[in-house]
Amino acid sequence: MIHLYTWTTPNGRKPAILLEELGLPYTVHPVNIGKDEQFAPDFLTLSPNNKIPAIVDDAGPEGPLAIFESGAILTYLAETSGRFLAPAGPARYAALEWLHWQVGGLGPMLGQLGFFAVRSPEKAPLAIERFTTEADRLLGVMERRLAAVPYLAGADYSIADIACYPWTLAATSFLKEPLAASLETKPALRRWLDAVGARPAVQTGMTVAEA
Amino acid sequence: MIHLYTWTTPNGRKPAILLEELGLPYTVHPVNIGKDEQFAPDFLTLSPNNKIPAIVDDAGPEGPLAIFESGAILTYLAETSGRFLAPAGPARYAALEWLHWQVGGLGPMLGQLGFFAVRSPEKAPLAIERFTTEADRLLGVMERRLAAVPYLAGADYSIADIACYPWTLAATSFLKEPLAASLETKPALRRWLDAVGARPAVQTGMTVAEA
Repeated sequence: MIHLYTWTTPNGRKPAILLEELGLPYTVHPVNIGKDEQFAPDFLTLSPNNKIPAIVDDAGPEGPLAIFESGAILTYLAETSGRFLAPAGPARYAALEWLHWQVGGLGPMLGQLGFFAVRSPEKAPLAIERFTTEADRLLGVMERRLAAVPYLAGADYSIADIACYPWTLAATSFLKEPLAASLETKPALRRWLDAVGARPAVQTGMTVAEA
Repeated sequence: MIHLYTWTTPNGRKPAILLEELGLPYTVHPVNIGKDEQFAPDFLTLSPNNKIPAIVDDAGPEGPLAIFESGAILTYLAETSGRFLAPAGPARYAALEWLHWQVGGLGPMLGQLGFFAVRSPEKAPLAIERFTTEADRLLGVMERRLAAVPYLAGADYSIADIACYPWTLAATSFLKEPLAASLETKPALRRWLDAVGARPAVQTGMTVAEA
């Protein structure tokens, strides 16, 4: 059994989507970050960075294995199942490029935009301008890529798409106001959002930990 | 031959350190981001995100292979050489956890702190406070980890240490002022910085692309 510690956020939804795609049995343990449950001592032993998501795989390679960081969790599940990440060759590294691009760029920059432009009552125009510009640039990078190939890693749907989907969808919903102009001119991104969002596993995974 | 497109930044130094550790022959192609050389059309074909570092491996699995994103480059070089990343088991995923933690957390948050607290002439106190607090928290996570184990992935030096070293060193130099109080109380982090910084490959890699 795989235990998934998660919440209703873009990063929290990534492993749920992959678990649904893989058809693996898993138990959801909601960690309500609105109630600071990620700071509970028990959770710290699984996730030393005090962030969701984390998993515990009871059938890990040498006994139960806890893994934190969504990018590491996606890589672990893909490698142990042999799906959604090529075992070698150019397709493998294309998927890892775009996975890291999401983890290091799209995710943190959209996350900061969400804080400064939406969540914070105090406004810092310098920060709003900086993260709006960077988010727009990153969505442009994604548009160029998806105008050339069906999925981020190329021909095939992979963990790179699973990592980027919840964040890109947040750009069209939670972050709609600062990014409205950017999204108007992204037909390839829209095509990809529709294709990925039509997958039943994605639809189910996106509802993880909802009451 | 491996071609390394890079500059004198924390992310730019990561692949140089690993290439030095591996003893692989490589050619450095400096991309001066102070002169916007990362926006040259030729570079865009290698690095669709217009950022350094990127590599081209002439001996790639199916011919020359270009890879961008420092985390993907480190993973590629470690997997093709069979060093600094275990091929399977808990040690592999411990290294990938901390690699992703650097790529998604330590790097972007210290990078934003550098912009708001050091580089920007205009000051946004809300942003400076936010990124100082988060950088301090992340260094605390690293301190707890390194008080328990010698290296980030556990017993052995890995690509997780290579990814974190240039950023952590920046916390003691470029970011010294906002992080001075945080660093005073991190003996395990200091021990690790000394141990990693004593490696000849790290010392050479840290000077990459310097004139």
